[in-house]
Amino acid sequence: MLPVHLQPESHVPLYIQLRDQLRALVHAGDLRPGDRIPASRELAAVLGVHRTTVANAYAELESEGLIQGHVGRGTFIQGNGNGLKLTPPPPPPLTNGNGLRWELLFADERGDEILSRLTASAPEDALSFVMARPAVDYFPVEELQICVNAVLRREATDVLNLGSSDGYAPLKEALLELLSQDGIAAKDENLLVTDGCQQALDLISKAFVRPGDCVVLENPTYPGAGAIFNGARARCLGVPVNTHAEPGKPLGIDLEALEATLAANRVKLIVLTPDFQNPTGTSMPLVSRRKLLELASRHQVPVVEDHIYARLHSRDERLPSLKHMDRSNLVIHIDSFSKVAFPGLRVGWIVAPAAAIERLRLVKQTTDLHTDQLAQASLAEFLRRGYFSKHLAKMRKLYATRLSVLDEALHKYMPEDTRWTRPEGGMCLWLELPPGFDASELLIHAKERGLLFAPGRYFYVQSHLPNTLRLGFANLNEKELVRGAATLADLLRIEMRKRQRGVRRAERSRVALV
Amino acid sequence: MLPVHLQPESHVPLYIQLRDQLRALVHAGDLRPGDRIPASRELAAVLGVHRTTVANAYAELESEGLIQGHVGRGTFIQGNGNGLKLTPPPPPPLTNGNGLRWELLFADERGDEILSRLTASAPEDALSFVMARPAVDYFPVEELQICVNAVLRREATDVLNLGSSDGYAPLKEALLELLSQDGIAAKDENLLVTDGCQQALDLISKAFVRPGDCVVLENPTYPGAGAIFNGARARCLGVPVNTHAEPGKPLGIDLEALEATLAANRVKLIVLTPDFQNPTGTSMPLVSRRKLLELASRHQVPVVEDHIYARLHSRDERLPSLKHMDRSNLVIHIDSFSKVAFPGLRVGWIVAPAAAIERLRLVKQTTDLHTDQLAQASLAEFLRRGYFSKHLAKMRKLYATRLSVLDEALHKYMPEDTRWTRPEGGMCLWLELPPGFDASELLIHAKERGLLFAPGRYFYVQSHLPNTLRLGFANLNEKELVRGAATLADLLRIEMRKRQRGVRRAERSRVALV
Repeated sequence: MLPVHLQPESHVPLYIQLRDQLRALVHAGDLRPGDRIPASRELAAVLGVHRTTVANAYAELESEGLIQGHVGRGTFIQGNGNGLKLTPPPPPPLTNGNGLRWELLFADERGDEILSRLTASAPEDALSFVMARPAVDYFPVEELQICVNAVLRREATDVLNLGSSDGYAPLKEALLELLSQDGIAAKDENLLVTDGCQQALDLISKAFVRPGDCVVLENPTYPGAGAIFNGARARCLGVPVNTHAEPGKPLGIDLEALEATLAANRVKLIVLTPDFQNPTGTSMPLVSRRKLLELASRHQVPVVEDHIYARLHSRDERLPSLKHMDRSNLVIHIDSFSKVAFPGLRVGWIVAPAAAIERLRLVKQTTDLHTDQLAQASLAEFLRRGYFSKHLAKMRKLYATRLSVLDEALHKYMPEDTRWTRPEGGMCLWLELPPGFDASELLIHAKERGLLFAPGRYFYVQSHLPNTLRLGFANLNEKELVRGAATLADLLRIEMRKRQRGVRRAERSRVALV
Repeated sequence: MLPVHLQPESHVPLYIQLRDQLRALVHAGDLRPGDRIPASRELAAVLGVHRTTVANAYAELESEGLIQGHVGRGTFIQGNGNGLKLTPPPPPPLTNGNGLRWELLFADERGDEILSRLTASAPEDALSFVMARPAVDYFPVEELQICVNAVLRREATDVLNLGSSDGYAPLKEALLELLSQDGIAAKDENLLVTDGCQQALDLISKAFVRPGDCVVLENPTYPGAGAIFNGARARCLGVPVNTHAEPGKPLGIDLEALEATLAANRVKLIVLTPDFQNPTGTSMPLVSRRKLLELASRHQVPVVEDHIYARLHSRDERLPSLKHMDRSNLVIHIDSFSKVAFPGLRVGWIVAPAAAIERLRLVKQTTDLHTDQLAQASLAEFLRRGYFSKHLAKMRKLYATRLSVLDEALHKYMPEDTRWTRPEGGMCLWLELPPGFDASELLIHAKERGLLFAPGRYFYVQSHLPNTLRLGFANLNEKELVRGAATLADLLRIEMRKRQRGVRRAERSRVALV
């Protein structure tokens, strides 16, 4: 077994201890490229720690390129961890039964897979702040069923046959009406239906981004955006998001940093979420929106506006979208039904200048011909019958209440030195633990108490702050929100006390040595 | 106006005459880079030819890089047509209202768009052999409606919430059952649900193909495959398909040519359709399948088997799929519901070794999270209730009849010197006009008579034969098939007579000159 010794009472998180000791073993030559290391479950049992501790250490070492997992064979030491992979992965036996060495064929590194890693080994009934999903108990299922049946009675052969790559015509009409209510005067040629916002980003990347192109993302940002542009081998440049307004630093993407980035790089696209940004929940004030558009226009860089949360505003007023304010035809506006209802129906849309849509339509055609038409037609009917606006109004109220309940509970329970954002809508807020704390480490203990959240590290494009985490609140009821906040606060106090004891012990040792 | 003079009675197709004269004008310097040329409608009116003639000439010149269309501005001379684009496109005015120059941002050349080009300016009620689509009049709509309602009553919240990237569990179960009936012993880890075969190809390309990698495609092939791999900047190597068996040359991909290609290139993937290939309708005999797998195994190249038409066999027997025969875990098998019923529901699947599926699942997650779940759940129910196998049996009979009606009609009407394939299933056959005839030119006249088909040129990876065309028969009834074959034969005879007159006139001139 590995010569690893963990100190549970140290204020250094266990997984960091394990990571550092394994790294040292490689650097010392005790572990060599090709060596197999124990499965996380196995090592956890030997060390008497939670399996997730080992999994987290392995994940860090994997992202450093020091170890690599091979499906069905185990985890192996990979190289020297200095970014250079000196040796190829250990050769698997080329048996008849196993055939081709598929791992060698993968076009690039495997993507991050945040959800399953986060929730691995958590109890089934865990209270989960992980997702930014709509409230499932409120899905207007009956209304949808009425729509599906109306559509199948009326237009089944159109719906069920191959359709247009730009979208099912009745849905496009209904969306243009919705857009005109949003103050966006789009025409049919400005609109493309997609399989949701994730696909919208994929199509945009395919249409506009070449390997090596620079793409500006907010830092932190939605991990699905980073996955797309990294997959396209773009250079992703993270620009900080101001999560707490200060004089000269309004909320949202830091415009000074953005300006510097645009000046120093030939940027191909700026991708951002002006309203209730994922993961921070922050919104850009009007003056920032104006300035952003000026900057983009001066540098002639298109702006991808992720509008997916914008309809979920707690207050009555709502800021105009970038697309609404766009005088230079710079903005590619992406949106989806999936934060209002039915994320299982994969339908979203892109609004952009006609030349961009024409290009995106050809890419869409190559990618998957068109979006599922039963979903498109049913959602068109759902819009036309007014079910969408009715449901949206109901959810806006519900989420506003949930957000304020969570905020109050955090005020009541969380220790000082923690702070969190004050979103005015959307589905998540962003919490900062006291400096020096690591949300990934806290998650290990939280899981044991049946609580889940998303550590901030999964959202950063670069230079991540380990003490941040995201709380998705939309799918938890008021009781759950209060219980979750209380548990989180309790866990944090325990960790603070542990650390305090560690500090005192260190002080005593120092005293003894004097 | 342009100094162009067309000779309608020449045996050289009008669009070729126009193309060559325009090219000559550029080479002579009469047309220069940046010059605007008339819109196709305008030029067609002046020349007294059909608009499609001009459109076809422009399409050829565009593919040579000699001219380029700019949305909303017109078509311009681009360069010298030698592959080098000496001058940038003419600068559009950067007005406030027009904003960004989107054309300059496109990541690569625009894709081919076969359907709209083919059917442009055709009458609404044209008799169309263009598509390989299931018979829309036979869609089992009531059965589907039963399934949708059962699913929404029973499992609405599961279906309508976000789901797994690998597919909706009940559909995966039903598909594994279907696969086991096909003799494929797949497990859950070998199966990924996609938005149809087009997306399957896109995911495979993203997972396994880097820019510059070699991909073997059949020549001719399904244009959607070429579009995917060209879009990924792969080198597409076309290997000929034998459409008429000869001694030592069985039907299907030419294995000698394939072997030579594999020996001369480091090939990353072989993509082919062993059953009722699109566009030729040919199927590989058993011995060829075996030899193909041996070749692929020897060169350690994965084989993508497009199985989309395989269930539509006219005879009772059916050849085993490559996946069924795969002993070396080499085969990625892709399939879809869309040729049996409901192509508007975008659901297909990939069967592959677990390591490949794991990689594809991560790519799928990045691409669009997952496939629409209402469609997945409804099709699972459609399989479970036996509706799928019942409908498939009915369609197999229907298409077998239609195929033999078309074959008989072609025998009855077509002139000698034409030949066509004898598919034993699928949705299309491949027809060769006498040497020297151009199917694109014939299509111009066919459109005027309300008949549409797909010229062979759209299906070639390289070295296209202009005298080929594809006839999709599945969605035409017996009367339409007979009428279509008769009209096509009539048109061809007219063109043959024209050419005969041209030859005689040329002979007379020669006599006069002597």
